[in-house]
Amino acid sequence: MVRDYTKHADGSVLVKWGDTWVLCTACVEEKTPPFLKGSGRGWVTAEYAMLPSATGGGRRERDIKKLKLDARSAEIQRLIGRSLRAAVDLSLLGERQITIDCDVLQADGGTRCASITGGMVALETAVRKMLSDGRLAVDPLLRRVAAVSVGICDGVPALDLDYARDSRAEVDMNVVMADDGRFVELQGCAEREPFSGAQLAAMLTLAKNGLRRIFRIAAAATGGEARRPRRPGAASRKRSLRGG
Amino acid sequence: MVRDYTKHADGSVLVKWGDTWVLCTACVEEKTPPFLKGSGRGWVTAEYAMLPSATGGGRRERDIKKLKLDARSAEIQRLIGRSLRAAVDLSLLGERQITIDCDVLQADGGTRCASITGGMVALETAVRKMLSDGRLAVDPLLRRVAAVSVGICDGVPALDLDYARDSRAEVDMNVVMADDGRFVELQGCAEREPFSGAQLAAMLTLAKNGLRRIFRIAAAATGGEARRPRRPGAASRKRSLRGG
Amino acid sequence: MVRDYTKHADGSVLVKWGDTWVLCTACVEEKTPPFLKGSGRGWVTAEYAMLPSATGGGRRERDIKKLKLDARSAEIQRLIGRSLRAAVDLSLLGERQITIDCDVLQADGGTRCASITGGMVALETAVRKMLSDGRLAVDPLLRRVAAVSVGICDGVPALDLDYARDSRAEVDMNVVMADDGRFVELQGCAEREPFSGAQLAAMLTLAKNGLRRIFRIAAAATGGEARRPRRPGAASRKRSLRGG
Amino acid sequence: MVRDYTKHADGSVLVKWGDTWVLCTACVEEKTPPFLKGSGRGWVTAEYAMLPSATGGGRRERDIKKLKLDARSAEIQRLIGRSLRAAVDLSLLGERQITIDCDVLQADGGTRCASITGGMVALETAVRKMLSDGRLAVDPLLRRVAAVSVGICDGVPALDLDYARDSRAEVDMNVVMADDGRFVELQGCAEREPFSGAQLAAMLTLAKNGLRRIFRIAAAATGGEARRPRRPGAASRKRSLRGG
Amino acid sequence: MVRDYTKHADGSVLVKWGDTWVLCTACVEEKTPPFLKGSGRGWVTAEYAMLPSATGGGRRERDIKKLKLDARSAEIQRLIGRSLRAAVDLSLLGERQITIDCDVLQADGGTRCASITGGMVALETAVRKMLSDGRLAVDPLLRRVAAVSVGICDGVPALDLDYARDSRAEVDMNVVMADDGRFVELQGCAEREPFSGAQLAAMLTLAKNGLRRIFRIAAAATGGEARRPRRPGAASRKRSLRGG
Amino acid sequence: MVRDYTKHADGSVLVKWGDTWVLCTACVEEKTPPFLKGSGRGWVTAEYAMLPSATGGGRRERDIKKLKLDARSAEIQRLIGRSLRAAVDLSLLGERQITIDCDVLQADGGTRCASITGGMVALETAVRKMLSDGRLAVDPLLRRVAAVSVGICDGVPALDLDYARDSRAEVDMNVVMADDGRFVELQGCAEREPFSGAQLAAMLTLAKNGLRRIFRIAAAATGGEARRPRRPGAASRKRSLRGG
Repeated sequence: MVRDYTKHADGSVLVKWGDTWVLCTACVEEKTPPFLKGSGRGWVTAEYAMLPSATGGGRRERDIKKLKLDARSAEIQRLIGRSLRAAVDLSLLGERQITIDCDVLQADGGTRCASITGGMVALETAVRKMLSDGRLAVDPLLRRVAAVSVGICDGVPALDLDYARDSRAEVDMNVVMADDGRFVELQGCAEREPFSGAQLAAMLTLAKNGLRRIFRIAAAATGGEARRPRRPGAASRKRSLRGG
Repeated sequence: MVRDYTKHADGSVLVKWGDTWVLCTACVEEKTPPFLKGSGRGWVTAEYAMLPSATGGGRRERDIKKLKLDARSAEIQRLIGRSLRAAVDLSLLGERQITIDCDVLQADGGTRCASITGGMVALETAVRKMLSDGRLAVDPLLRRVAAVSVGICDGVPALDLDYARDSRAEVDMNVVMADDGRFVELQGCAEREPFSGAQLAAMLTLAKNGLRRIFRIAAAATGGEARRPRRPGAASRKRSLRGG
Repeated sequence: MVRDYTKHADGSVLVKWGDTWVLCTACVEEKTPPFLKGSGRGWVTAEYAMLPSATGGGRRERDIKKLKLDARSAEIQRLIGRSLRAAVDLSLLGERQITIDCDVLQADGGTRCASITGGMVALETAVRKMLSDGRLAVDPLLRRVAAVSVGICDGVPALDLDYARDSRAEVDMNVVMADDGRFVELQGCAEREPFSGAQLAAMLTLAKNGLRRIFRIAAAATGGEARRPRRPGAASRKRSLRGG
Repeated sequence: MVRDYTKHADGSVLVKWGDTWVLCTACVEEKTPPFLKGSGRGWVTAEYAMLPSATGGGRRERDIKKLKLDARSAEIQRLIGRSLRAAVDLSLLGERQITIDCDVLQADGGTRCASITGGMVALETAVRKMLSDGRLAVDPLLRRVAAVSVGICDGVPALDLDYARDSRAEVDMNVVMADDGRFVELQGCAEREPFSGAQLAAMLTLAKNGLRRIFRIAAAATGGEARRPRRPGAASRKRSLRGG
Repeated sequence: MVRDYTKHADGSVLVKWGDTWVLCTACVEEKTPPFLKGSGRGWVTAEYAMLPSATGGGRRERDIKKLKLDARSAEIQRLIGRSLRAAVDLSLLGERQITIDCDVLQADGGTRCASITGGMVALETAVRKMLSDGRLAVDPLLRRVAAVSVGICDGVPALDLDYARDSRAEVDMNVVMADDGRFVELQGCAEREPFSGAQLAAMLTLAKNGLRRIFRIAAAATGGEARRPRRPGAASRKRSLRGG
Repeated sequence: MVRDYTKHADGSVLVKWGDTWVLCTACVEEKTPPFLKGSGRGWVTAEYAMLPSATGGGRRERDIKKLKLDARSAEIQRLIGRSLRAAVDLSLLGERQITIDCDVLQADGGTRCASITGGMVALETAVRKMLSDGRLAVDPLLRRVAAVSVGICDGVPALDLDYARDSRAEVDMNVVMADDGRFVELQGCAEREPFSGAQLAAMLTLAKNGLRRIFRIAAAATGGEARRPRRPGAASRKRSLRGG
């Protein structure tokens, strides 16, 4: 992870997971989406896109050529947005919007998990900047989140499949987790054969272990220290993470 | 479930789950998407939309007015499509496309699960019609799938939340299952607070029980008899359910 | 006609004319289009769409897939809107917009006439609701309107052609009439051969008789009693029914 | 009417009716729309647009800025297309498409009638050109059509209203007629008050007289002689003028 | 040049350069684009379009059919807008926008230069109108601009190529000049072979001579007298012509 | 310049000119645009886009959100495409299309010149790859092209303005040159004040010197040796570089 990769965004990081490279940036805007106007609350949203030459198998047409947001991108950016909103107490953000842009420069599997994990680093950078320049008085971050993909390949549960193995996996699962070990989002999908409860359990264990390591790397990227445990107490429990 | 609700589609059913009404139809076209041309394989895809007056809280603008497919609809129709493709051996379908249209006439929570379950009935009806009129020689259906939503509301796991309870739930999870009890798709999302492994287990148990009942109802709707167990043996295991 | 078919709209009716089924709903919004802002006047508009599986001859692509409102739909919804505005004194509506959505679940000819007639019932239901909950003090309805299609088929004038006969008719004419027997809109179109003045007169007589019956049915649907004759006197004569 | 106004189109005419100026061109393309492929039949279609500065009351945004074909234009160009197809035996045209473009340079009421009448001249010019250069062996024109608008203004039926009078008319009616005096299309619309059968009759008489004069002018524009009466006999009666 | 060609625009001119006919109109609107709100400054912008039948080689599809502004048109209208803004002191215009519409009725090479030159006439007409009706107190025009195309054809520099020669030219260059002989915009493009500094100089000399004549014609079109030399002094020098 | 930056494209380079970073990739497709089908000729085209966070002054909305290709991007990508086609003998390319994608990761002035220069490197890399794997027998490259921006800032001609100086420059000029010192494209634009012939000459001299250095750097990036002088003889002179 190369933090502060570009200079104009409020937070930016270039995530390099093997041959998967995602540039994640966070931009703060002093406006809020219409449905929150007057609520005093802020919003975190995400956009995800691939450069035309990011994947193997030939150039992909840009969305604007077809005048349609790619449906897979739409699904992924909703996932990233929901996951990152789970990390923030939106009522402490003020009427601001933070947009996390995840642009895939090169893809080799796992781009949505790299985007969530990198997006969290960019988001945290932007929040710290707002705290240090006085735009925010109280830290609105409730927790860190990160994501990892697991799957079942040739009958064996496996972590972080690259594209070659991922494309012949029987099951593909994305696990978004908070740094206290609880789940934020879980998306499992049988690609070839439905999966049993036992297989699910094996994948979740694998994911948990992988995520522990990722949280350590992300903590290093955002300043070297693990995030102090903010008590997930009464206040935050009552606050909604829910989004649109 | 009112089967054969409309007459022009190859299969159609009006699903009424409480105040959630979804019209699911299946249309067979003798063409295949470009990426399958010449492969001998077929395709199953889904489209999902809400009528403008389907929800409470005021009229929703039609997508065509905004020239954009609603991102939530895009996400849902990809889920429906993936789930239903898991029910079919696409290599036995021939170069045909079956489109499942799920149009929500009235919404009160759980529309995506109603769509998957109703879509399966419409799909099965269309397949039987093709078998009886000779367009298909071998039944391409591998299994039935159905879906149910579970959640955690005020700390208690609960099945099939209506809109009022769903909108204040802490966790929302959609479980798509095959009729042999294995998982096809799992989408869980922390709306207010991350969830633990124990909470996940409780929700999955609840879902399993609910789905057993739903499979009985769906079986009744498509002809009264439970689906004969097609051996999920060597052949089908090797075949891919994977989609785009 | 099944009135109050769905629950979230302010008025709703499922019109079943043979195999033509149209769901008509009326939604009231406390806003007015830009060109009426500050005028104190309201607006009535209509949207018309077909479900993809509504017609025979194969599935129709959704408009949003092509990013274009179907031109035939555009023409029809303008007709519905103009016809229904003729029933309302817009200056008595306040700065409100009532949108009539006409969604064709199944089509077998005559969908635009079914939409106008059903739209009138939905509109009247919504207006009565506003009168009873005090949002309106004075009834803004000037008259009822209804529509019927007539044509010339094999040289013989005929009422209400189904799709099979309609598609080989020589002339196709839609007649929108007020309940006092005067014309609101007239759209006649030579499909195969121009038509003479005598043929026009024969079609109009047929339409008039058909509409008398339809007004009785619509009156029953909206409350059993025929609409009290509101004097089409000085005031209303001066008011404009004109729309955009 | 200034015939052969521009040089690249196969037929072109600048219609000047008072301050309403419409440039009508006909372009022949050696292709046919998909639904006619292999049928041996041709097609006539129309497009209608206004320049941004064509009307009083301020500049109109171009459609491409809003990414939407103006709904009024869509309605009008369908009317023009239907009307002109009524003039042609499409089965004699071969698999060709003739597109009539009607671009309003300046508007002062009656643009749709000017477009139909001018479009007919452009169409006839293009057909004669194809006959003279041998692309067509048999004249496919069945008849000439022309259009005129009538209305009721201050209670009095009147022909050809300019914009100032048209915008306060009670009734607005467009009459498209063949040169044998029969109707091709009839579109009447109550703008302020429904109209009676007697009023309808008065307007139609007025229209008929107006159209007789217009046919003489159009004949002059396309070559000075009135169109020889092609027997509207057995053959043409069986042919369909119907369009999409 | 036919000035005051249409009546609804604030300025209008039909430019006929050989077989290239462009209708240029100027419309003043009492609004300013968002990025100038509150600045007290105005804006001049341009739109350029071709009628479908304007060119040889077959009918061109309208942009709205493809839902995309033609990229060549986008490039040209940006050039026209920049060139005309160079003629105006935007800070003297007030918060107004003047839109120059350039619609090509017929094309035979040089449409962008005809548009700039005609656009200047329409703009000047509109400004004079505002001066005479008191909407403007001070003349905001700094200078006149005009444009001419030069090229190298068969090795010889040539002025004002028609389409036939232009399409086989080796170099194509558009020169926009102010009436004091200085350059406003220069766009040269090697179509077949790069060009040398000597060739550039030859083309610029040719352009300069051609433009001197054009300025005389344009001056005649806007009132017979050459524009009084407004001292291009201290004030105007400091003002920015820059646009978006 | 970091060559071979990403692995899936046929050629790729990350250009870093100060704080302007552009990722240029070249992708070869075995297809040709419709207007070249059957001609035996190939095509080179370019697409240009900025990431949302690439510029200072706040996040830019993605084109797909507005459903419109940014007009400035459209203009720039046409310039890049024309410039690079001038480097290739398209008739030697076969019916192939090479798309140059220029994605700006960070912008600080001069992105279009960086795109042309980097695009040339990516193009040359892709061509060499095709030569070495036998897809091309003869080298279709005629010459190298590169671009540099010059301007007049505070009255003084200056090379390669960064954004801060560029935005207050009086004149902005982009010069695209071939490696034999001749001009490929010239785009000069008066931003505040028209410029004289003397100022033009000064800018061109500056550009020429700057480009000599850039050609040396680009040569180094594509293999260390200067491009052998391909005789710009009879054959290439007759071939057209012209594009759409």
